[in-house]
Amino acid sequence: MERIYATYWLETGDDPAHAAEVIAGEQSSGTFVALPTETPELKARAGARVEHLEVLGHSAQPSLPTPAPAPSGRYTQVRLTLSWPLANLGPCLPTLMATVAGNLFELRCVTGLRLLDLQLPPAFAQAYPGPAFGVDGTRHLSGVAHGPLIGTIIKPSVGLSVAETEQQVQLLVDGGIDFIKDDELQADGPACPFDERVRAVMRVVRQAADKLGRQPMVAFNLTGNLDQMKRRHDLVLAEGGTCVMACLNSIGLVGMTELRRHAQLPIHAHRAGWGYLSRSPQLGFDYGPWQKIWRLAGADHLHVNGLRNKFSEADDSVMAAARTVLAPVMESAPMTAMPVFSSGQTGLQAQDTFDGLGCADLIHTAGGGIFGHPGGVAAGVQSFRDAWQAAQEGVPLAQAAQQSPALRQALEFWR
Amino acid sequence: MERIYATYWLETGDDPAHAAEVIAGEQSSGTFVALPTETPELKARAGARVEHLEVLGHSAQPSLPTPAPAPSGRYTQVRLTLSWPLANLGPCLPTLMATVAGNLFELRCVTGLRLLDLQLPPAFAQAYPGPAFGVDGTRHLSGVAHGPLIGTIIKPSVGLSVAETEQQVQLLVDGGIDFIKDDELQADGPACPFDERVRAVMRVVRQAADKLGRQPMVAFNLTGNLDQMKRRHDLVLAEGGTCVMACLNSIGLVGMTELRRHAQLPIHAHRAGWGYLSRSPQLGFDYGPWQKIWRLAGADHLHVNGLRNKFSEADDSVMAAARTVLAPVMESAPMTAMPVFSSGQTGLQAQDTFDGLGCADLIHTAGGGIFGHPGGVAAGVQSFRDAWQAAQEGVPLAQAAQQSPALRQALEFWR
Repeated sequence: MERIYATYWLETGDDPAHAAEVIAGEQSSGTFVALPTETPELKARAGARVEHLEVLGHSAQPSLPTPAPAPSGRYTQVRLTLSWPLANLGPCLPTLMATVAGNLFELRCVTGLRLLDLQLPPAFAQAYPGPAFGVDGTRHLSGVAHGPLIGTIIKPSVGLSVAETEQQVQLLVDGGIDFIKDDELQADGPACPFDERVRAVMRVVRQAADKLGRQPMVAFNLTGNLDQMKRRHDLVLAEGGTCVMACLNSIGLVGMTELRRHAQLPIHAHRAGWGYLSRSPQLGFDYGPWQKIWRLAGADHLHVNGLRNKFSEADDSVMAAARTVLAPVMESAPMTAMPVFSSGQTGLQAQDTFDGLGCADLIHTAGGGIFGHPGGVAAGVQSFRDAWQAAQEGVPLAQAAQQSPALRQALEFWR
Repeated sequence: MERIYATYWLETGDDPAHAAEVIAGEQSSGTFVALPTETPELKARAGARVEHLEVLGHSAQPSLPTPAPAPSGRYTQVRLTLSWPLANLGPCLPTLMATVAGNLFELRCVTGLRLLDLQLPPAFAQAYPGPAFGVDGTRHLSGVAHGPLIGTIIKPSVGLSVAETEQQVQLLVDGGIDFIKDDELQADGPACPFDERVRAVMRVVRQAADKLGRQPMVAFNLTGNLDQMKRRHDLVLAEGGTCVMACLNSIGLVGMTELRRHAQLPIHAHRAGWGYLSRSPQLGFDYGPWQKIWRLAGADHLHVNGLRNKFSEADDSVMAAARTVLAPVMESAPMTAMPVFSSGQTGLQAQDTFDGLGCADLIHTAGGGIFGHPGGVAAGVQSFRDAWQAAQEGVPLAQAAQQSPALRQALEFWR
């Protein structure tokens, strides 16, 4: 019988084997009291199973507050793998969430719980489409055959009028940019309405495409209710646009599934809110299992923060996240998506990003690193691109800068 | 100009006034670097504003790990209210989430951040319908004019066949129950398919209604993709059912909004996963602002845990949560929903629940407290109901038990 496997970091003041059984029970056929109807046959058929339990360490204090302190005064950290029969829920992502990440974080025997990994049976890849475009489709639509998509985010995030947004995009496409995205705060506010923004921006982008022979990709943030998202998608498509963006935690799994079903364009998936899911190391989610669910649902591009970023995430976490986005969802269904690096990025991170990822199938966005270039936006884009060229060829930046005036200037203000 | 107000508990190793400005900037027109395009006019128009900042205390250690320890070695906890112009986003719940709970929890200056309150302008109540049934509609459909809906959850959560589920429901409706719900793990798995379950259960429920003169309400868990949820809702409606249930964190805001748009039945909203949003006191959400968003989207019933529950939540948090569900979403739009108490509940919690809430507009579910009654399920329901009757009349349980053999027996095993 096909099973679902979830691996957790667990901390408990109980005997870990007992805590593991409690969690397995709570998330399947058991409950707080023994029921005569939970027969051995039923338990064998529907019960979650403790597959693996490995003690990692101990501490004298609980990571998260508990109303039931350990009588022993000792808390144990373990790596725990549970499994569920697929027959309990079928290949349904929303019910998968309730099963592997439902009412278990608040159990009394839990003083820390984080989902580290998720292995799903092939039925999920039959029930969900995965990304429609991924790396290849994105390269095809953007005309960037090799190397990263050199990108940026329209800033200020909100507050620009439609005309000001258009001007900024004009500068960027004239500068040779590959990829532009809306900020997650900019969707369809009355101060910069979506429809007007798309029409104005696409006019500029289409003109640029005529000159460049390739069309810069613009991810328009269509986050909203379903009818709004569909209508906005159709407008982007009608205007010749090649990408739409949605905030995953804002729209939820049903929103993403429906958007994917409707969309004829790549879906740029923003993870705004990821902090509340992950900032406590003892609670919530690692990026690996989380992004897998959204790739099944159809995300083409997934944000992963960036090396030496301006947030609190460490570089190893960023790189691990990015690698999971390129790793197969399952052996039989790769569903590869494209990692998006952002936050305080410049050409200085190109080499380490390339080395860490092992390839250049990514979108790399810089703001200040492009706009701050003393030679202007075109020089900003060129320097970022030259830094990536050097990274891919293994040439040190200082050496590459000898051939590139734009890069030479950039090295003076990137830091 | 209409504004959105969000209040946070914030901890920072920076000067709190500076941290507040950074957060306000990041979530509106600012970014990590100063941009010439962020003019004073733009900032005045689109910037988030620090409305209130109150220092609560200090500590020598950060609550959440940070790569940027406070140079002063001191972390300050504050209560912070920010406001945003509605014009930035319009009355859009998904973009509201990205705005008030987006990329801010992971900011470097933040070592703890929790959303405590949310005040929305009337435009949101014009854009979203709120619950279609709420307290009055639920009372009407269930035929329970006064007092709580006495309820239970089908257990084991998963593993029962359709026939076994039907048998359990038969026992419960024969016993006079008001409300029954599926477990959040039980949606449409092949082991107990939704359609067959609904048909079998509703056959029993309709027969019971003929006898009782009122129809027990059954919340069928239709959590799934949108087309599945709509189809399942229609089946419940066609079979004469009076409630559907969905897991909010599983389906997301778009799912809920679409379900509400389609539904002709009350939506019983389950909060599975609430633990990952709230278990760390220094991260995530209080229940107040969170439930407000889901009520705007259309939740009729909202889970709030229960007093002296089997999870880790304290009683004062449970009661505060329940009260927010009955409090108006805004002055001009009450959108009252019904709190659902569950987890280790019996008649022993009736008095404190009633006193804490100030009314009996609630659903109270018990499992073992009903099924464990030595006199059978009917006696279990009767004793729970009698305990509530006593609570509402201010009669001590021991005294009420003198008039109720079922309650007398129950007092011997409830604990």
